[in-house]
Amino acid sequence: MPVLSKIDKFSNFPEWYHDILRDADIVDIRYPVKGMIVWRPYGLKALRLAQGILIRLLEETGHQEAYFPTFIPESVFSKEKDFLEGFGGETFVVEGTMSKKFNERLLVRPTSETVMYYMWNLWIKGRKDLPLKMYQMVNVFRYETKMTHPILRVREIMGFIEAHTAHATMQEAEEQIKEAISIYKQFFDSLLLPYFIVKTPPWDTFAGAEYNYDFVTAAPDGKGLELGSVINLGQRFAKAFDLRFLDSDGQYKFVYQTCYGVSERVLGAVIAVHGDERGLFFPPVVAPIQVVIVPIFREGEEDVVDYARKVLKVLKESGVRAHLDLDTEHSPGWKYYYWELKGVPTRVEIGRRETSSNTVTIVRRDNLEKKTVPLEKLVDTLKETWLQIETHLKSRALDYLKKLTIIPHRQPQTEKGLIVAAWDGTKACAERLEQVYGKNVLGEIVESPIELPPLSEFENLCEKQPDRYALLGVTY
Amino acid sequence: MPVLSKIDKFSNFPEWYHDILRDADIVDIRYPVKGMIVWRPYGLKALRLAQGILIRLLEETGHQEAYFPTFIPESVFSKEKDFLEGFGGETFVVEGTMSKKFNERLLVRPTSETVMYYMWNLWIKGRKDLPLKMYQMVNVFRYETKMTHPILRVREIMGFIEAHTAHATMQEAEEQIKEAISIYKQFFDSLLLPYFIVKTPPWDTFAGAEYNYDFVTAAPDGKGLELGSVINLGQRFAKAFDLRFLDSDGQYKFVYQTCYGVSERVLGAVIAVHGDERGLFFPPVVAPIQVVIVPIFREGEEDVVDYARKVLKVLKESGVRAHLDLDTEHSPGWKYYYWELKGVPTRVEIGRRETSSNTVTIVRRDNLEKKTVPLEKLVDTLKETWLQIETHLKSRALDYLKKLTIIPHRQPQTEKGLIVAAWDGTKACAERLEQVYGKNVLGEIVESPIELPPLSEFENLCEKQPDRYALLGVTY
Repeated sequence: MPVLSKIDKFSNFPEWYHDILRDADIVDIRYPVKGMIVWRPYGLKALRLAQGILIRLLEETGHQEAYFPTFIPESVFSKEKDFLEGFGGETFVVEGTMSKKFNERLLVRPTSETVMYYMWNLWIKGRKDLPLKMYQMVNVFRYETKMTHPILRVREIMGFIEAHTAHATMQEAEEQIKEAISIYKQFFDSLLLPYFIVKTPPWDTFAGAEYNYDFVTAAPDGKGLELGSVINLGQRFAKAFDLRFLDSDGQYKFVYQTCYGVSERVLGAVIAVHGDERGLFFPPVVAPIQVVIVPIFREGEEDVVDYARKVLKVLKESGVRAHLDLDTEHSPGWKYYYWELKGVPTRVEIGRRETSSNTVTIVRRDNLEKKTVPLEKLVDTLKETWLQIETHLKSRALDYLKKLTIIPHRQPQTEKGLIVAAWDGTKACAERLEQVYGKNVLGEIVESPIELPPLSEFENLCEKQPDRYALLGVTY
Repeated sequence: MPVLSKIDKFSNFPEWYHDILRDADIVDIRYPVKGMIVWRPYGLKALRLAQGILIRLLEETGHQEAYFPTFIPESVFSKEKDFLEGFGGETFVVEGTMSKKFNERLLVRPTSETVMYYMWNLWIKGRKDLPLKMYQMVNVFRYETKMTHPILRVREIMGFIEAHTAHATMQEAEEQIKEAISIYKQFFDSLLLPYFIVKTPPWDTFAGAEYNYDFVTAAPDGKGLELGSVINLGQRFAKAFDLRFLDSDGQYKFVYQTCYGVSERVLGAVIAVHGDERGLFFPPVVAPIQVVIVPIFREGEEDVVDYARKVLKVLKESGVRAHLDLDTEHSPGWKYYYWELKGVPTRVEIGRRETSSNTVTIVRRDNLEKKTVPLEKLVDTLKETWLQIETHLKSRALDYLKKLTIIPHRQPQTEKGLIVAAWDGTKACAERLEQVYGKNVLGEIVESPIELPPLSEFENLCEKQPDRYALLGVTY
């Protein structure tokens, strides 16, 4: 049996995270290419459930799925110069097959702007082709020079959901940015993840973009975790790829573009944020198993097992993801421990008493509270219980983030955590802040999950009067 | 408006197919890497629906989804020698990034045996780890030397669903082969595709395998289309990757393995087989739009439009994939033509008469039969209508396949079609058959959708008395 060493995730996050990924069957990091990992069925199921939520939100707002090839001819990739500079160095290159060298090198997509906009040039003609809203779910490849971490920073991102849009006016593009932010807020909220939204400083903006917003949360070691980016591309790619439409005034005009993406890192964040000393903790919406049924029976008590099977049937018929643990090698106590480690949010215990009285005992993973209810109330009670668990997880996650967010003049400054500082928006002051706090300015805070003290309370390290908050951190 | 030249798919399949893919918004072949294509949302939606059917069948039979990396170190790829020989030449190679050369070359997966079994070596320990049944849905890459054709033969296969299994005994592996065949039969049957199942001859077997079965149908030009393969890998990979388990008798034993895969080619087959002179024809189960609502109204007849909206709502609430065409630029006749071209299996016409009487007129795409029913019977009538359409499409497809399957002594031998011949199973006779008919032996027919005449009726071109049927053809 996998025994989780009772590590505190705050004092030793890397070890805790490593153990959890292995013992809960999320991924296997023993694949012989650095930064590339194998997803095991249990972990992948959780990821698929999370992706399903985002895809539903994208489809409901009129984004359509498309698929663009993995390999990009170097000549197409090089069309936008800043982009080439930003991504070129970390791009994997195919020069041929085992027996043949190609005339032109093919780059393995690190992100799909160039491959997509090459085709949009053929598709966008008139105003009625706009807005164009597409997404795809693909694997992308980046030869990261930063240290790799399973799921959080990998060289093959296997579940990148990237959306791209084109619009007739800057105003429409800005509306689209708002829609994208709203989609991501709903998505991260559904995963019970608290986040800052920051606008990145110009010198740290996505290659080829006007500006971008990042959603940032904190890992238990205080490092920042970027959950998603929303990018206003302006007209730079439109000009590089000649994306023009015939407007109603008879003029050909360049489109305005946005893009936004989320990867499997979001599941890494779910694991890091919601886990605890008893292991993984999946919010019910993404739990591959929402309820595990553990029957407590001795040899010959077939009626208990039959009743447990009936309970399983009731749950499955209601669309609940349930599992019946009939393993006879291990004790019920062992099973409780095992399924808690795997993050199953609720357990149903069935013994002699439950079988005789046609009841079930529901146990919450978060506080181990028990409740015995008649079988016919099981599904409704579970749904209420999940709401309570969600509320609890959400508030616990926010407490964690508060603990990991340092307001320098209010608490002792430690190495560990994101830092909020007063900022005037200049590069000079950003550099000063970075020097003082030993962390990078991630951007201007445009939305905070935590109430921040008034700017006037902060120490002013800028030349001008600060008019905004900066978020500083070291990111994965 | 895309105007489909009224090409007969049997007399000029390449042109018909090319026009259909473009005009019905399935894929765009103008991507600047040969053999790599872009999937447009309408085509991709149909593919996702088809994939969903197969994934459901795989999950119901206990296959679990996993994900293994795209890049395979050359040393791992080379472990099974026949496999290396079979796939090595057409494998894309990554030697580094734009700025760095790697120590070891990485191969881009042409299929996932090696990457997967490398990990299985770490996972399979005892009898209770077996059977292991996994699948993944991935993009795979093969530098095909055969001529490429959109969807049917490409260099990036973007939707390969490959299943892999490991078993304690050969008998269990053979049972698994039966299950796989049954899954594929259900899958292709649901797409209304008729097929031969052939057992490939030893000299044409999947690299590293014992034997394999192929599902084969015919394109309208008479070429064979392989829909899927089911492969008994025996113990060759198990030996190459040292996949052993501790059996109950205390001995370590090699596992027996199978694998089976289907790609997006199946959607190419759906398009090729079911399309006709009016364009695409999607079976209702994979139609991105199952019903298009075309209101027939003049300016000011807002009540007709309102009624059409109500009909749309009724359909959506019943889970029907419906679209309301409110475009005012085009006539209803134009719209009928357009949506037929896009393969929508049923249309609902709504005019003054329907609006006044609270009815709808349903039109079938296959025979243009009309039926007017009260609104409250719409959904039920549609479901009946789809069953009728399915029956019709299925029998039409079988007629097509009959027409494209030549029994030499019964009909004049043309260039066009698959050929059935009597065979003794020897390589000598296979070569003779290939010489006489100018086609390749695809294998021994183990299941035929068409009743075949007794072997004794066939001309005997073998030395021995033929005891089986061979299927010959030229494949995509």
